[in-house]
Amino acid sequence: MTDKPFDVVGLGSAIVDIIARCDDDFITAQGLDKGSMRLIDDAEATRLYGLMGPAVESSGGTVPNTCVGLTSFGGKAAFMGRVAKDQFGEVFAHDLRAAGVTFNSQPAEDGEPTGRCLVLVTPDGERTMNTYLGTNTELSAAELDAQLIGQSKLLYLEGYAFDGPNAKNAFYEAAGIARDQGTTVSLTLSDPFCVERHRDSFLDIIKRSVDLLFANHHELLALYQTEDLEEACTRLKQDCSLAAVTQSSKGSLILTKDETIEVAVESVNAVVDTTGAGDLYAAGFLFGYARGYPLNVCGKLGSIAAAEVISHIGPRPQTSLAELAKQYTLS
Amino acid sequence: MTDKPFDVVGLGSAIVDIIARCDDDFITAQGLDKGSMRLIDDAEATRLYGLMGPAVESSGGTVPNTCVGLTSFGGKAAFMGRVAKDQFGEVFAHDLRAAGVTFNSQPAEDGEPTGRCLVLVTPDGERTMNTYLGTNTELSAAELDAQLIGQSKLLYLEGYAFDGPNAKNAFYEAAGIARDQGTTVSLTLSDPFCVERHRDSFLDIIKRSVDLLFANHHELLALYQTEDLEEACTRLKQDCSLAAVTQSSKGSLILTKDETIEVAVESVNAVVDTTGAGDLYAAGFLFGYARGYPLNVCGKLGSIAAAEVISHIGPRPQTSLAELAKQYTLS
Repeated sequence: MTDKPFDVVGLGSAIVDIIARCDDDFITAQGLDKGSMRLIDDAEATRLYGLMGPAVESSGGTVPNTCVGLTSFGGKAAFMGRVAKDQFGEVFAHDLRAAGVTFNSQPAEDGEPTGRCLVLVTPDGERTMNTYLGTNTELSAAELDAQLIGQSKLLYLEGYAFDGPNAKNAFYEAAGIARDQGTTVSLTLSDPFCVERHRDSFLDIIKRSVDLLFANHHELLALYQTEDLEEACTRLKQDCSLAAVTQSSKGSLILTKDETIEVAVESVNAVVDTTGAGDLYAAGFLFGYARGYPLNVCGKLGSIAAAEVISHIGPRPQTSLAELAKQYTLS
Repeated sequence: MTDKPFDVVGLGSAIVDIIARCDDDFITAQGLDKGSMRLIDDAEATRLYGLMGPAVESSGGTVPNTCVGLTSFGGKAAFMGRVAKDQFGEVFAHDLRAAGVTFNSQPAEDGEPTGRCLVLVTPDGERTMNTYLGTNTELSAAELDAQLIGQSKLLYLEGYAFDGPNAKNAFYEAAGIARDQGTTVSLTLSDPFCVERHRDSFLDIIKRSVDLLFANHHELLALYQTEDLEEACTRLKQDCSLAAVTQSSKGSLILTKDETIEVAVESVNAVVDTTGAGDLYAAGFLFGYARGYPLNVCGKLGSIAAAEVISHIGPRPQTSLAELAKQYTLS
C-alpha cells in the first residue's frame, strides 16, 4: 500500500454540529433515544433548536471527523461529500481544509442547505444526535473522484449515508473502483438504528465489498439480531476478514478470521462529550493500518484518539494526535 | 430603579465569533496588533479566514455577551441590534434568546450578512479580533425600542458601534430617551483603537449623557492621550460621575467624584481565552449596580464573571454566574 499518496479517502455526509448541553429530563421529555442518532426534517430541526439552550458550532460528520483525526496523526486524507453554498457550507469546507484534508467538492448552488446536527450533551458526557441531512440527501455517484480513490490506500464509507436515496449506489460504485485500483474498502456501521434501517444492505456490502469493518457492540448486535456479542463476533468473522468492534469504556476487539485481539481503553480524567469517539477510534486505527502497524497498535492508536476527543466539547481533536502517539512511543 | 422589569437594555453590534488558535508568529506575519480589535472588509475576512486553522463558532458581540452574562447572574436583559436573515443570524438570535435575553429585532431580508469576528487566540490566551461588521454597519435609530429603554434600569452602549455611520445618532437618541425615562446610561469604550477613531465623540457623549463608564486602562489612556493612569483617572472623574476601569491581571478601579475603590482580580487556574473578559466584567458590575449593591460588590461580581469567561474558549459563561456568586455569598 506504500506507493499511494493518500492514506484514506472518505465518502460520507458533510455536517456542521450545533452542540448544546441539556439535562436528562430534556432528553426524556423530547422522547429521544439517549446516545443515538435520529434523522429529522427541517421543521423538526427548527422546533428542537428553538427549545435548546445556547450552543456552539463545530464542523462534524463521521467520515470528515475521521479524516481530520487521521491527518492529526500525520496521515494524508481526502473527503468526498456535499455542502451547499451557505455559511455552514463555508465553515465546513474551511475547517476540513484548514485541518489539512483534501476536499475538492464544489458547494451546490441550489437545493437543500448544508447538513446540520443538533447535538445534545447530557451531564454524563453522552451525546444524542438529531440530524437534518440537507444537501447530503443528494449524495450520489456524482461526488466520486475515481482518481482520488485510486490514489488512496483505503476508502472509508459510513453507514449513515445509506439514508440518502442515491448514496447506496454511490457506495457500490466507489467500492468497485476501489477494488479495481487495489484500494482497501472500509465501512463504519455508524448507529444501531441505522443498522436496523439498512441491515440487508449492510450485510450485502460487507460480504461483497468490505475489507475492514468498524462497529460498536450495539451496532454489531443489531446487525446480527442477537444479544450475544460472542455469537455476533463469530458471525462477523465469517462475513468480513477484519473488523474493529468498540465497546465504550470496555475497550475494543479486533477480529480476524483466526484471532480476537483485545485492546484496552485509554483512561481520561473526565468524559466531557462523547461526540466523535467512534470517529476518532477509526482515525487512529486507519492511520495505523495504512502505515502497516500491527493490529494491536492500530487499536491502541484508536483508543488514544478516542480518549482525546471525549475529553472536550466537539468531535475533532484539539491536540496533535501525532504528539500524543509519540508519548506512547507508538509512531 | 426597582419598578422597571429589565435590569439592562443593550444597544450594539450582533456578532458571531469564529475562534481559532494560532501561534504568535501568525499574528506577527499578518501584521496584527495582538490583543486589539480591527475592522476588516469582506475581502479581507475571506483572505484571513483562508489562512486560519480549524475554528469553532460561538455567538458573541460585546453588548450581547454582557446581556447574557447579566442574565446568568439572574438578571433580566434585552438587546437591540441587527442580524441578517442567514445562518449566522439564526445562530446569533437563537443563542441570545436561549440564554434568556429578550431580542425582538427581526432579521434584515437583504443587504449585508450577519456580522462576524475572526478571533485568533494565541497560546497565552490573548485574543486578537478581526471584525467584519456586515449588517451592523446599518445600525440606526430604527433599531431603538423606546418602550424597552423606558422599562430598563440601565441602557448599555458600546464604543465599537460608533464605527457604523448611523450608530452615533442612534446612541444620542437612545441616551435622550433614557434620560427622559429615568434610565441610567452606561457605555463601554470597547478598544483603544476605537477610542483613537472616535475620541471627540466619546468625550462628548461621556460628558453629556453617560452616567456609568466602562473602560480598560489602555482605552482610558487613549481617551485622554496620556501615559499616566492617575492623570487619566483624575480627568475622568471630572467628566463622568461613575466609572469602572479594568486593568487586566491587576484588577479594577471604581471611580466616583469622591473616591477610588480598588477591586482585586479573581484568580484562575489557567487563562485559556481572554475573549469576553471585559464584557463579562461589565455584566457583573451592571447586575450588582442594577440591584443596588455597594460599588465594591459590583466590582467583585465583575471580577468573578471575568474569571469564569477567561477559563474557557468562547466569550459567554459556561457556568451559572448566579451559582458562582453564591459561593462568594454575594448574591
